[in-house]
Amino acid sequence: MLNWEGLLASRAARMKTSEIRELLKLLERPDIISFAGGIPDPALFPAEKVSDAYAKILTGPAATAGLQYSVSEGYRPLREWLVGEMGKIGVPCTVDNILIVSGSQQGLDYLGKIFLSPGDTALVTWPTYLGALQAFNAYEPAYDRLTPMGNRAPESYRVQAEAAAEGGQVKFAYVTADFSNPTGDTLSGPARNQLLDLAEALDIAIIEDAAYQALRYDGESVPPILALDVARHGGDIEKTRTVYSGSFSKTLAPGLRIGYLVAAQPLIRKLVLVKQAADLHSSTLNQMAIAEVVPDIFEAQVARIRETYRQRRDLLLAALSRSMPEGVSWTRPEGGMFVWVTLPEGMDGARLLARSLETEKVAFVPGQAFHADGSGANTLRLSFSCASPAMIEEGMARLGRLIREALADGA
Amino acid sequence: MLNWEGLLASRAARMKTSEIRELLKLLERPDIISFAGGIPDPALFPAEKVSDAYAKILTGPAATAGLQYSVSEGYRPLREWLVGEMGKIGVPCTVDNILIVSGSQQGLDYLGKIFLSPGDTALVTWPTYLGALQAFNAYEPAYDRLTPMGNRAPESYRVQAEAAAEGGQVKFAYVTADFSNPTGDTLSGPARNQLLDLAEALDIAIIEDAAYQALRYDGESVPPILALDVARHGGDIEKTRTVYSGSFSKTLAPGLRIGYLVAAQPLIRKLVLVKQAADLHSSTLNQMAIAEVVPDIFEAQVARIRETYRQRRDLLLAALSRSMPEGVSWTRPEGGMFVWVTLPEGMDGARLLARSLETEKVAFVPGQAFHADGSGANTLRLSFSCASPAMIEEGMARLGRLIREALADGA
Repeated sequence: MLNWEGLLASRAARMKTSEIRELLKLLERPDIISFAGGIPDPALFPAEKVSDAYAKILTGPAATAGLQYSVSEGYRPLREWLVGEMGKIGVPCTVDNILIVSGSQQGLDYLGKIFLSPGDTALVTWPTYLGALQAFNAYEPAYDRLTPMGNRAPESYRVQAEAAAEGGQVKFAYVTADFSNPTGDTLSGPARNQLLDLAEALDIAIIEDAAYQALRYDGESVPPILALDVARHGGDIEKTRTVYSGSFSKTLAPGLRIGYLVAAQPLIRKLVLVKQAADLHSSTLNQMAIAEVVPDIFEAQVARIRETYRQRRDLLLAALSRSMPEGVSWTRPEGGMFVWVTLPEGMDGARLLARSLETEKVAFVPGQAFHADGSGANTLRLSFSCASPAMIEEGMARLGRLIREALADGA
Repeated sequence: MLNWEGLLASRAARMKTSEIRELLKLLERPDIISFAGGIPDPALFPAEKVSDAYAKILTGPAATAGLQYSVSEGYRPLREWLVGEMGKIGVPCTVDNILIVSGSQQGLDYLGKIFLSPGDTALVTWPTYLGALQAFNAYEPAYDRLTPMGNRAPESYRVQAEAAAEGGQVKFAYVTADFSNPTGDTLSGPARNQLLDLAEALDIAIIEDAAYQALRYDGESVPPILALDVARHGGDIEKTRTVYSGSFSKTLAPGLRIGYLVAAQPLIRKLVLVKQAADLHSSTLNQMAIAEVVPDIFEAQVARIRETYRQRRDLLLAALSRSMPEGVSWTRPEGGMFVWVTLPEGMDGARLLARSLETEKVAFVPGQAFHADGSGANTLRLSFSCASPAMIEEGMARLGRLIREALADGA
């Protein structure tokens, strides 16, 4: 009998089961009020319009094109529409600056594949998107902490020195600038410019994860990092160092698995080759369906999602204020799907969850997994995208009680 | 301005533009009779049935599930149907032995990712599927030649010794057992068993690319390597070393990008983690649409494709017999989409193509790119899947003339 473990010695094969994802399955029990998932509310999917688009394509002259192989770069009319959208947010570009990928997660995988050799360093925030760490981990980078809010000059030298000590170099900084998963935080304009300064000083790329960027509920929108980068270079995207990672998963529907990367052409051209070797191209039909619906419905769809999620965020923030004991703090996101809770020092989110599943039956994601260094034990993530008013009210009352009890027990 | 080349130093980033794929674009000129493409005939796509399936899903209660995130393993009803299909070809298995991927190309990429560390060796035939070499190349393996027809015992030791000298080990043998791309050749039952013997002697895995397996036009079908492997182990797939790579691209439609891997659970479990990190899951909607149509139409669809391609193969073989000068030989495939032509020794397929584009305007793929060692200059691939009778007749007359002229010129 074959010893698979002996053969599966590559770095990707050494990946461990994601405890978080296993946990999420567990938390779908019907007796649990869950704020753990990070998925969009399916009631908001534009199913009818999407259905019309598939019908139109598959019963018309475009049917065979939709079912046939297509180019690795992506369906051109969809890229053309994206050129218009990027223009609206301050990023003048052409179709040759855009690669369609099978969900933004695939974009992160390809960026890891193309940038990272073992021992190279990726700069990420503490905490950061768990899926980004999982995508990058296959390429065995070291991580260093990205804290773009402060004065970075001395820090940047430290980062560089440590990367060299690992035998690699710093390759990129990965950041979700708007309403990040997991914290809900948004980088200010000055912080984005500091990040660009840092990237210029280190001569590295920036990966700007814009998965939630369209979902702003209040406050003033801040230009994307790529837009600031373009502005620094006389409007010429070819001179920028930022890769913008976009997604239709939070605005239209994740089940179609369509996202996109926007960057200078030398990078996009390399990524096209990587995609060609890795899966040829993303589903032709799904790209055509999205290209069919977006001109008509995208704006209204985003407005509808914003309105719904904004109400849920407001309810969650209000319930937190009513229910949390002293010593607990949380973010007040201006968009996205998440609120990040910091527990009193010494309290452990994972232990709290275990206790909750026994007693209060309220679920959340403990924050440690989002930290590349394993810190953040006293944090947790709450998602409000699928939460009803009753769930929020009852769930936060339970969570407050749970934390109070844990405090009383000295846990 | 950022120096992208400096940052893009990983192995994936060093990939060169695929000359073959660039060439294929060139060959789509309307004045050229092309046998170069390797795509299915779109006239055979079951567009109406596929259209009905999308309509049923998107206008019914399953719409939200189709548009939502789903599990990395793949849509369970589709895996259940595949369990039945695998049973029919001698591979008893369960849904836990199956991973749905975004086209079989993605399966090859993930297998490369999970098996290969730089310096490891992959055994491939000379020639082999170009896309497999492209997928594996990202992980920097060495290649050694797989010649499963002969007595392999001494050869297998040589293979092992060379792999050790590269600092890695032999990890797998990759083979298309039925109607291979590019040669159209099929491995006999004894050759399949010899390959299993070799894999057991080396304690390596086998990747069986079954992309064309359903497309047999005559002759007796040979059990898949995985079926022979299962039979060697008392019907227990958990004891096998073969990964079966299946595709819907040649039987239903490539534009949906749905394929599958079948193997022992320890490997599938690792692949699920790789997929989770790399793109979360394949399109939920497309998986559901395929699961919807296959019980009804799969058999009739395959029968229809077989009948059409069989006629084209027969016409191509007859035209070759009529048109080729002495010294040219070719394969007589029992299925698939390709005939492999061997030119007289010393004649160069790439030079012949360049000459053809000037004069005869008939296109094919020169065979060298399919060889991991750069040999095979005097070979070329002809695809008959999209060829009309008139195209075949005229195209082979031109190709025969071209080769005769080249012979006369001593080229």
